[in-house]
Amino acid sequence: MTSPNADEVNRVFRSAPFIADLGLQLDSLGPGACTSVLLLEQRHLQQDGFVHAGVQATMADHTAGAAAATLLPPGQIVLTAEFKINLLRAAKGERLICRSTVLRPGTQLSVVESEVFCIASGTERLVAKATATMAIVTPRGG
Amino acid sequence: MTSPNADEVNRVFRSAPFIADLGLQLDSLGPGACTSVLLLEQRHLQQDGFVHAGVQATMADHTAGAAAATLLPPGQIVLTAEFKINLLRAAKGERLICRSTVLRPGTQLSVVESEVFCIASGTERLVAKATATMAIVTPRGG
Amino acid sequence: MTSPNADEVNRVFRSAPFIADLGLQLDSLGPGACTSVLLLEQRHLQQDGFVHAGVQATMADHTAGAAAATLLPPGQIVLTAEFKINLLRAAKGERLICRSTVLRPGTQLSVVESEVFCIASGTERLVAKATATMAIVTPRGG
Amino acid sequence: MTSPNADEVNRVFRSAPFIADLGLQLDSLGPGACTSVLLLEQRHLQQDGFVHAGVQATMADHTAGAAAATLLPPGQIVLTAEFKINLLRAAKGERLICRSTVLRPGTQLSVVESEVFCIASGTERLVAKATATMAIVTPRGG
Repeated sequence: MTSPNADEVNRVFRSAPFIADLGLQLDSLGPGACTSVLLLEQRHLQQDGFVHAGVQATMADHTAGAAAATLLPPGQIVLTAEFKINLLRAAKGERLICRSTVLRPGTQLSVVESEVFCIASGTERLVAKATATMAIVTPRGG
Repeated sequence: MTSPNADEVNRVFRSAPFIADLGLQLDSLGPGACTSVLLLEQRHLQQDGFVHAGVQATMADHTAGAAAATLLPPGQIVLTAEFKINLLRAAKGERLICRSTVLRPGTQLSVVESEVFCIASGTERLVAKATATMAIVTPRGG
Repeated sequence: MTSPNADEVNRVFRSAPFIADLGLQLDSLGPGACTSVLLLEQRHLQQDGFVHAGVQATMADHTAGAAAATLLPPGQIVLTAEFKINLLRAAKGERLICRSTVLRPGTQLSVVESEVFCIASGTERLVAKATATMAIVTPRGG
Repeated sequence: MTSPNADEVNRVFRSAPFIADLGLQLDSLGPGACTSVLLLEQRHLQQDGFVHAGVQATMADHTAGAAAATLLPPGQIVLTAEFKINLLRAAKGERLICRSTVLRPGTQLSVVESEVFCIASGTERLVAKATATMAIVTPRGG
């Protein structure tokens, strides 16, 4: 496997306003893999004090997209075709970590898995797991 | 079907910090149904100028939870067990509307469908469709 | 929408050994739509006397593929990229009917919904609902 | 973790007519884990000569149910609430092996992952991956 397309991954993290707004940060990347981190704040919670499923889903989806992007040839981008996420435990803590790995790279579709962990008082627990199908497309005018 | 549990739905929308932060608003509700609206801003976009999948997923999930909550007996809450979302078209426009309907109410699980529409220049198009499984639980100490 | 590609749909139903083995039959088709029927036998059940989830999943997947195939240009085929199915009620009865509709046609991917109904003593009930992503491909050597 | 509930797993495999009809066999089990095997025959294929997605889905679902059943207290059964499967590669070969592992055990729901491998000319490849949500219920009259 060649070295990851770091330029595209950096763009995916730095040029996405919703990701900046959420506070999601790129932690590390490798060929077909990406890890991101989110420092939890009050504004990330739902009505019962747990991390909102939408926060976990955004993290799982975006990090999956970045993992797929590491394998992209120049000039192509990834768009989420679909994803499914299981929320395994109510998440409460200081930090979320998401580790995404490409399960099946492809030229039209890539299938990626994301695991979201919550760190609370130094203990890391798996709180969500997602599988995403990413469409690899050539942007119009791109 | 009895009249919807409006108190719980209002709590689900008003007491969820992530929902307030996102700008998602309750539009209307009925027994087993809920509609929400989001005025799109720059901060809701991803790196290519489209609405981030995480925004659509949050909307689909939260509105599905509210639709399930309309049917809850007092003292119970809903937590997302899992959901799956298909992003059907790149979304770009002024506003998102999400319409969620309970497909199968239950005492332990409710299955809910959410359709997300994007309004651009007065035209409404379906941009995402999700199916969510909601767990109905009695909160500890609740 | 043009008239459906009936040749490909007929091939999808007639040339699939697992479908013949299961007893699944094509009922009707239209542009972007397909309906199939299965007469339930003892051999379709799981260990508690209900229709096996795998039977419902096969029906939902295959009928979805046929619905997508109605819109195919000649020389292309559909392969299932992924599907998700919610089993809504334990199914018991004489017959299953599956109605599949293309939610989003595409040139590389089609998204299709399938509803599986069980007929018991003349009453039809929705027992499962699935969403499938179909890849549209040109067969090698085809 | 206690020793697995082998009685229930054996019942799940031996008393399910559709599983006998398909030819799916229990290979091994452990606490929260189950492996099954299917010798591929012509009747398991779809219209293009690949293993039908429904065969892989049935295997992924049933083996996931058995993995969840290993952790059941006596008197309870599992029913599939939902599952999602990604078909990663067209499957062609002599044998399928499915390995299922409980990702999150619970008292009302268990989340299980299944990996389906195809063996062709001695080479094993991952062809499908599924995530299933199993409902744990007390049978009526049971």
